[in-house]
Amino acid sequence: MSTLNPQRTIEELKDLRALTGDADGAQRVAWTDTWAKARAWLRKKLEELPVSIETDEAGNVWATLKGESDDAVLIGGHMDSVPNGGWLDGCLNVLAGLEVLRRLASEGKPPVTVRLVDWADEEGARFGRSLLGSSAASGTLNPDEVRDLKDKDGIRLEDALANFDVSLDMALEAHQQLRTAKAYLELHIEQGPVLESMGLPLGVVLGTVGVERHGIRFTGQAAHSGSTPMDKRKDALGGVSKLHLEIREIAKRHHGVCTVGRVETKPGIVTSVVADAYMTLDQRHLDPAELAAMLQEAKDYSEQVAKDEHIGVEWSKLWQIQPLPFDPQLIEFCEQAILETAGVSHRLPSGPLHDAAEMVRAGVPTIMIFVQSLYGISHNKIEDTKEEHIAQSVEALDRLTTKTIDWIASKRA
Amino acid sequence: MSTLNPQRTIEELKDLRALTGDADGAQRVAWTDTWAKARAWLRKKLEELPVSIETDEAGNVWATLKGESDDAVLIGGHMDSVPNGGWLDGCLNVLAGLEVLRRLASEGKPPVTVRLVDWADEEGARFGRSLLGSSAASGTLNPDEVRDLKDKDGIRLEDALANFDVSLDMALEAHQQLRTAKAYLELHIEQGPVLESMGLPLGVVLGTVGVERHGIRFTGQAAHSGSTPMDKRKDALGGVSKLHLEIREIAKRHHGVCTVGRVETKPGIVTSVVADAYMTLDQRHLDPAELAAMLQEAKDYSEQVAKDEHIGVEWSKLWQIQPLPFDPQLIEFCEQAILETAGVSHRLPSGPLHDAAEMVRAGVPTIMIFVQSLYGISHNKIEDTKEEHIAQSVEALDRLTTKTIDWIASKRA
Repeated sequence: MSTLNPQRTIEELKDLRALTGDADGAQRVAWTDTWAKARAWLRKKLEELPVSIETDEAGNVWATLKGESDDAVLIGGHMDSVPNGGWLDGCLNVLAGLEVLRRLASEGKPPVTVRLVDWADEEGARFGRSLLGSSAASGTLNPDEVRDLKDKDGIRLEDALANFDVSLDMALEAHQQLRTAKAYLELHIEQGPVLESMGLPLGVVLGTVGVERHGIRFTGQAAHSGSTPMDKRKDALGGVSKLHLEIREIAKRHHGVCTVGRVETKPGIVTSVVADAYMTLDQRHLDPAELAAMLQEAKDYSEQVAKDEHIGVEWSKLWQIQPLPFDPQLIEFCEQAILETAGVSHRLPSGPLHDAAEMVRAGVPTIMIFVQSLYGISHNKIEDTKEEHIAQSVEALDRLTTKTIDWIASKRA
Repeated sequence: MSTLNPQRTIEELKDLRALTGDADGAQRVAWTDTWAKARAWLRKKLEELPVSIETDEAGNVWATLKGESDDAVLIGGHMDSVPNGGWLDGCLNVLAGLEVLRRLASEGKPPVTVRLVDWADEEGARFGRSLLGSSAASGTLNPDEVRDLKDKDGIRLEDALANFDVSLDMALEAHQQLRTAKAYLELHIEQGPVLESMGLPLGVVLGTVGVERHGIRFTGQAAHSGSTPMDKRKDALGGVSKLHLEIREIAKRHHGVCTVGRVETKPGIVTSVVADAYMTLDQRHLDPAELAAMLQEAKDYSEQVAKDEHIGVEWSKLWQIQPLPFDPQLIEFCEQAILETAGVSHRLPSGPLHDAAEMVRAGVPTIMIFVQSLYGISHNKIEDTKEEHIAQSVEALDRLTTKTIDWIASKRA
């Protein structure tokens, strides 16, 4: 009987980095040779265990450790990365899950089935559609919406998938994999600064936040910067500046986050008052009512500003997703696992989406563990986490898995 | 003896529009065939008068009505336009001056010499260097700084001028033309909304404002819009929004104008806090001390904002020019001429630069008359002025010319 060896996970992460990274970072972009190499490397490790391995119709790889019951606890992650990515994002989840599988397999047949899933194309780095494999499994993917997405070389998504023996028209068949799923567990680096700023290694994720993403265009009047007195101007940029400062206050009032990431000015020359000012707005909150209030307050304020500045304003929705809260019982188990591992825990929402969000949408009780990110940075070669925290994260995932197995088993009893 | 006929000026402006404009507006861009056509049309009209016509080394055309004394009153304008320009900008000045010359010539030899000048390339539309001909005459032009400027087809300024028999290396010889100049008069459309908003046809221009033109870059930290709490952000756009709103207040406090015409954001994506925010600033005032105070207040505020937002700030000068005040005596004459013509006057600075600014720099006592612009718009085919106001502007220029001639003559006496 082998005990859990988190140090092995750290060594395997380094091996994977050497195999599939370069001086610019990780290069395991989904539907590329380097990604295939990473998955072949993973498969060899899985083949050493008493698990059955299959690839579903969406390209997700499943390793199944059969239990006394078919009811399954899923542990998920993704081997794919963004280009010039970090050494942990996605693959930590998979390799920590692999280590948990090893420990479980060494102890004989577990009371319920445990399955490790390597989701295909979580990042959407090549075609701009993230969560591809997990959304096929959850059933939220619409093949017709992604079929003709092109990469920078003009290759269609559908054709790229076919090269990996994935037929887009069959992808939704992956949903069959969730038939027996009773719980979904995912470990991930935080990709944010919260745990680091609190000096904590691990956190319980409460769910993925809802997102309101809009483009806002203020329209004024171009006018010569020299010949137009201040009180004769219709400065479209006035709308952007005032709304930007106010949405930061809105975020603070509601304990959410609001971001203006892009501003564009037209005609955009030094000698003209701005006639047309465009800004993006991204608002996120775990509570649907708070999210709706943040959006309404921003809209109301933009109308008031437009009136005050004698300019027009128009909103256009870019994207929207509801908050996806995780399972209350699994939140409790996760907190216990973290407390047992690190002695201290913290609850926080996830700003970024994860494959776990698709599992919530599929109705599978879901939970995530966050491990501290250094500098709050990911999707970059300097993405990093202290090795002692990585080791703790593997241990916490292992404890959480045991608690979840016992919970699912007890439900059957 | 012919009396002044402002209606003729209006008809000639319409003829010129038909000859050198199209559905998109005026096309008399300097150093093009259409510009040459406009100048040939003007020369034919000048040749009907008892004036000598010459082209100086910078391509400026001079029509000289010899007087009892060599001391000269100059009336200036420019036949060139921006592409898709209006029917009045620049050529109104010239054609009104032509009409004044006609009236003067019909009355015999004036007591002092009167010269009409059609400056070459006031707009700088093709090579990006405005006031080319008048700055050669004033002596502020540095040929080496403009020699290699290229148009959109890659043609060098020096070569384009050579096509019109202008040798850039000889251009500063045009300064000789100012040897006898005792006063410079220029009529121009306002190109702004001030006179229209006051319901006035004409205004006395006090000078061209000084300009401080700077680029300001705030540097923060890119961070994920979902995973970064508000209090952990270094939002570079915060610097831009706060400074933009403050510079509008600075302008109002000092009775000047301040404009932010362009904002750029990096990485400029909806899911990232802005790491790098760039803005342009254009500040203008007729009073050098006020202009300096406006700049200092903007700089001080930007430093404070950078501190408050935990971001960096860096200023880079784009361009700068001192205020160029017009002649006090000519301001008085101009006001009298306007009052006699329209019964009401108003004094205002010019935000845009004009050839008149170069005459101030050359030490020639200078004045401008503004005539109301409809909608405050120019450099556009919808640029317009009521015909009754055009007629009044010709009359006012005529009265101003007479007063100036008498003044110069009386100085000799």
